[in-house]
Parts: sequence; structure tokens; C-alpha cells
Amino acid sequence: MTVNILCFAGSLRQESSNKKLVRSAARLLEVHLARVECLDLSDYPMVLYDGDVEQSGAPASVAKLAAKIAAVDALVVATPEYNGGITGVLKNAIDWLSRLNPMPLRGRHLLLLSTSPNPWGGVRGLWHTRVPFEALGVHVFPQMLSVPVAHTAFDAEDRLTGEKATQLESLLRLFIEHVANKTERQAA
Amino acid sequence: MTVNILCFAGSLRQESSNKKLVRSAARLLEVHLARVECLDLSDYPMVLYDGDVEQSGAPASVAKLAAKIAAVDALVVATPEYNGGITGVLKNAIDWLSRLNPMPLRGRHLLLLSTSPNPWGGVRGLWHTRVPFEALGVHVFPQMLSVPVAHTAFDAEDRLTGEKATQLESLLRLFIEHVANKTERQAA
Amino acid sequence: MTVNILCFAGSLRQESSNKKLVRSAARLLEVHLARVECLDLSDYPMVLYDGDVEQSGAPASVAKLAAKIAAVDALVVATPEYNGGITGVLKNAIDWLSRLNPMPLRGRHLLLLSTSPNPWGGVRGLWHTRVPFEALGVHVFPQMLSVPVAHTAFDAEDRLTGEKATQLESLLRLFIEHVANKTERQAA
Amino acid sequence: MTVNILCFAGSLRQESSNKKLVRSAARLLEVHLARVECLDLSDYPMVLYDGDVEQSGAPASVAKLAAKIAAVDALVVATPEYNGGITGVLKNAIDWLSRLNPMPLRGRHLLLLSTSPNPWGGVRGLWHTRVPFEALGVHVFPQMLSVPVAHTAFDAEDRLTGEKATQLESLLRLFIEHVANKTERQAA
Repeated sequence: MTVNILCFAGSLRQESSNKKLVRSAARLLEVHLARVECLDLSDYPMVLYDGDVEQSGAPASVAKLAAKIAAVDALVVATPEYNGGITGVLKNAIDWLSRLNPMPLRGRHLLLLSTSPNPWGGVRGLWHTRVPFEALGVHVFPQMLSVPVAHTAFDAEDRLTGEKATQLESLLRLFIEHVANKTERQAA
Repeated sequence: MTVNILCFAGSLRQESSNKKLVRSAARLLEVHLARVECLDLSDYPMVLYDGDVEQSGAPASVAKLAAKIAAVDALVVATPEYNGGITGVLKNAIDWLSRLNPMPLRGRHLLLLSTSPNPWGGVRGLWHTRVPFEALGVHVFPQMLSVPVAHTAFDAEDRLTGEKATQLESLLRLFIEHVANKTERQAA
Repeated sequence: MTVNILCFAGSLRQESSNKKLVRSAARLLEVHLARVECLDLSDYPMVLYDGDVEQSGAPASVAKLAAKIAAVDALVVATPEYNGGITGVLKNAIDWLSRLNPMPLRGRHLLLLSTSPNPWGGVRGLWHTRVPFEALGVHVFPQMLSVPVAHTAFDAEDRLTGEKATQLESLLRLFIEHVANKTERQAA
Repeated sequence: MTVNILCFAGSLRQESSNKKLVRSAARLLEVHLARVECLDLSDYPMVLYDGDVEQSGAPASVAKLAAKIAAVDALVVATPEYNGGITGVLKNAIDWLSRLNPMPLRGRHLLLLSTSPNPWGGVRGLWHTRVPFEALGVHVFPQMLSVPVAHTAFDAEDRLTGEKATQLESLLRLFIEHVANKTERQAA
């Protein structure tokens, strides 16, 4: 069966290495027959969550992003570590999504990746990033991958190279097998 | 000696119970001779952090907020728990502030408070909220206070009442003694 | 199909309310046709993990506990919050188990429960407790249940009562459905 | 004035690289005129915390360790990351200490260090290790130091070498200045 996956990065900058990482992941997922869509959070502009703004109507991007999420089995998110934790950009998107009913994140599978110029690749931030997803009922895959020294990790076509690319492919295979098991059974 | 403290809430809604909590704290701090300023993050609008936006100039609010923080010895922040963690609003402000040099948060003392309609008052979120502050070199006071069932915790004048008010006063006294010790010595 | 579940508490005291909670969960799981075994960590004595002790042979209890875990699809662990986090007892057991190859925890499903005399039922501790399990490749179920005011939560036969019992039953049903889906497919 | 510091590692193995790290820190602290005592948790044997054992008397090591802690201004603890988190050894010691009244950890200053064979030096574990200390009222210094690739980081006399040694010395100086400010004032 085919697994449907949505990929995006947790930062906005156009040349973000996490955008390169998530596109690298998407290419590898396609090789393994997943149906993949990548999106860019820049195309889903959201003001900061404010209960008063919500009263007069959430940003249109919230419902659009929610529809994308509701249509897939799983998410792959590559996200930088900002100050030891989740990016404000990603947390703000989660805060808006969490207000919807039905809430599109609940029950989704999620694989978290990160890359960073530093030697540990943002690994601290991933543990902080898991928390709000798990609090919302997302099955965050236990294994994660952090790619250190981001500036040398990608080739001229923005593909992840070297040992980390091999590790990423193994991890993605594990992840889609895990998701496929679940999804097939629910369809039965 | 007088301790200078800046107070704000980690959410934007005008009727936010965390705004009430931080104002309650400010009144109690003034009784204990701290010099206190309260501000509202609504008056410091910031787009979501984006490295490309930063290149063309950070929002003016970032420098304004940084100047407020740089002028005090300590912060008192009351913040809701959004999805088990820090609010996107607060994280985004931290993400912007962290890009400044000198970075105004480093070395500051911080007391974290929370309130929430739920029975545990947002206590999970406070532990998640500590992380980015500590990653930036903030001395986050180990003790924190969470006020449960926010809708019954405040009187008609938005003052915290009952046992939690007593606990808050004790905690604030402990906190300013701690900050005063440090600050006096540095001034000597 | 039948799901095989192993249940235990993360503390040693004979009258531990978390032992009552895990036995309450076991009874409810049996109603839902899971095959359940409860064990008591008191019967699996382990010294504190020490690499030098390991050289001369891990405690026999480590292999015995590992065999129990390897034989099931999922774990249900009820554990107190000690000082805001995981109990040393439970962490020490994990530290020993993690040294085995194959490592029996990898790929297991885990549901975390807690109870405590305090009004939030140990909810902070559960978030801290997730971390080492997830670092070892355990699928920790996103939903968890914390039972506050433990001393009034159980009847004379140590069964959880009231609204929390209803919530526990719903959560257990969700959990075994989730595990069953995964397990059936792997067996196919 | 002289700052009194107690140093120990969070693991038991005799050749533990964290024991080497904490001894390296102790030597550097002495250069900066702190009065330092190093101890080895192996000399403070404790069974796993059990409320029933406590009823019949806590291990003698608990009171002995508590007296050491109560006599100093600050702690420096170097600790490995076990499975993404605090070691069971260290957590168990905290669990026992937390039962004392007065509780010797409250109000102490703590600097956390780690080393590990892996490339990120145990940095994830330090964030997990902060939690129980902070929950008990310890002022955990925001800055921490993780030494990667432990097996090449120390010289033949078990001294930390290279750039990390320089970083450690700077961090220790910052830490004792911070502690001295507090301690002097309290003595005044």
C-alpha cells in the first residue's frame, strides 16, 4: 500500500538547511514509494496566536495547513534548534492548529529531523520539539536524526550526502514501514 | 537597595488570566519595595522570526523590548501552557531577542508563573518554558507557581485571592531577596 | 487477536498507590481480552548500574526482566513522580536493560500512568519519564493518565473508582487497539 | 572570600571519564582559590529508594552525603548521559536526599558537566538531569559544558586538554564568581 506523507521545515528562511534536509528526505521517500508532498510554512502566513484574533477569525492559512495534514498518514518535519528548543514559527503553527475541532494532528505519525551548523546538529531542540506534538496526541517516532555541520552536509543540488544520507534512508524506511502497518489495518 | 523588575505575560489576549496574574504579582512586588514595570507583548508586535526578514531589519519592537529587559535586574513572566509547552508568542519573542548582541536576556534573573483553567494550572508548560531561557544564560528561579482553575482565582479587581495569593507573596519575597543579593554585590 | 501486555509500577513500596493503579489497569485490560501479566520490581532486585559490576556479570534480575519484556507486545507502567521526574528505581532498571543486545525495550509500545497524593497526580514526572524510553526506541503512547489525590482514588479492594476509572478504561481501550493494529500486521 | 565546593561524578565505574572530568574541574577550581572536596559515589552505597526501607532507616550513606552537601556553597557534578537522561545512580541519590528535612540540596548552586564518547558529549542528558535538581530548589547554573569524544579528551594524567580545558576554566570562573556574590552577601 502507499503511505501519504507531508513534509515541511520548521523555519522560514529560503536558504534554510532544514528545507534542504526535508527535500532530501522527500526524494528518498519517493524512492520507497511513499506519496509525498512538500510545503513551505512561508506559504502559510500566520500571525502570532491571540485569542482575540481567533474570535474574529483564525488566519486562512490555519485551515489550509490543517487540510493538508488531515489528508495524510504521516508528517516528516525537519526543524532547527532555536535556543535549545522548538522554533517559535513551528510552535505558533501548532498553537493555531490545536484550536481546530477536529484537530488534524491527533493520531498522525511524525518523524522529526534536524540540521544545524553546530557539531550536534540540533539534537537538544528535537527533544523539546517532541513535547507539544505528543501533548496533542501525535505518535512521534522514537528515532530521530540530527545532521551536524549543516554547511558541509549537502551537495550542490541540496542533497544530503555521505554517511548521514545512508542513515536518513534507513530511518525513513523504518518509519514508513511503521506507518504502513498502522494505515493498512485501519483501511481493512 | 531597590530591585528593578520587568513583568509581562506570555500571551496576547486582552482578558488573559496570565495578564491578571502578572499584574497581581506586580502589586505585591511594589509592596516589597521593588521598582516594577509591567508591559504587554501586544504593544511589541513581531512577525515570526525569519532569517531573511532579519537581513532586511528586525522589527522595531525587538530592540524596544530588549532595551526594557536590559534596564532591569529581573523578569517576572506569567505564561499559559499551550499544548504542554511554551507559547509560540513567547518563544518567538525569545528567538528574536536571542539574535541581538549584546543579548539582553543573558545573566538576567527570571521568575516563572502560570495560570490555567485546568486543575494543575499549567505546571507542565512551565518546565518546557524554562528551557530556552536557560539555554540563553538566564537564571531561572527554581521555584515556580502555578495557579489552577484560573476563572475562580481572581477577584473583581483582577487580584489573585486566597491561599495562592499568600503563596505568591512568599515566592516573590524569596525571589527579590535572591536577586537583591546578587545585584548589590555586583554594584559594589 | 490477543494483545500481550506486561504491567508494573515504577516504585518499590508494598502499599504504593502506583501498584494499585497498575493492578486496576490490569483488571480492565483483561476485560478487554488482553493477556496481562503484572510483576513487581521488588522481585527483580538490581544493584545500581556500574560498568565494573557489569564486567563481572549483570544481576540475574536484569535478564529475567528482559525476558518478560521480550515476550509481550506492550507495557503499561504506572509510576510516581519523584522530584519532578522519573524514579531512580525505574531509571536504574532501564539503564541495566539498555545494555543488553538485543535490547528488549526497542519497538515495544508503552502506556504511562501515574498517581500521586498531590492535585496534579504526577503529570510533570510522566514527561520526564518518557525521555529514556523514547531514547531507546520505545513507542510511548502520546496520551497518558495522571490520577490526583491518590489516597482517595481507590476503593477498599484497591480498585480505581469514579471518573478517573472511566477515563482509564477509555485510554486502555485506545491503547490496545493501537497495539493490536501494529501487532496483527507484523504477524501476517 | 573563599567558595566551598563539593565535586562528584554521576556514575560509579572506577575508570569513568566523568570522574576524570570532575577531577580536572577540581584542580582548576583550586587554582581559582575555591576550597574543593571531591568524593566518589561508590563510597556512599545506597540501595534503591523504597519507602518501606526508609521506614526502617535510610542507608547511612544518605546522611553522610547530605552532611557533605550541607557544608558547601556549591556543587560541581559531571555526569554521563544514560539513555538520553540522568543516570539511575544520580537520580537514586537525589531521591534519597530529597526525603531529609532540612533537605540539603535546597538553595545550593550547581554546575553540570558531562563527557561521553559520542560527538555531542552527553548534552541531551544534561537537560534531563537539571529537572530533579531544579524541582528541589537547586540553582542550576544556566551554562553547562559537554566534552565530546571522551576517550581522546584527557591526557595521561587524566587532565582535560585542548580547547575544552580552556572552556572549562572560563566556565568555572564564571560559576564561582556567581556563587561568591551570593555567598558573601549572605555572610554579611
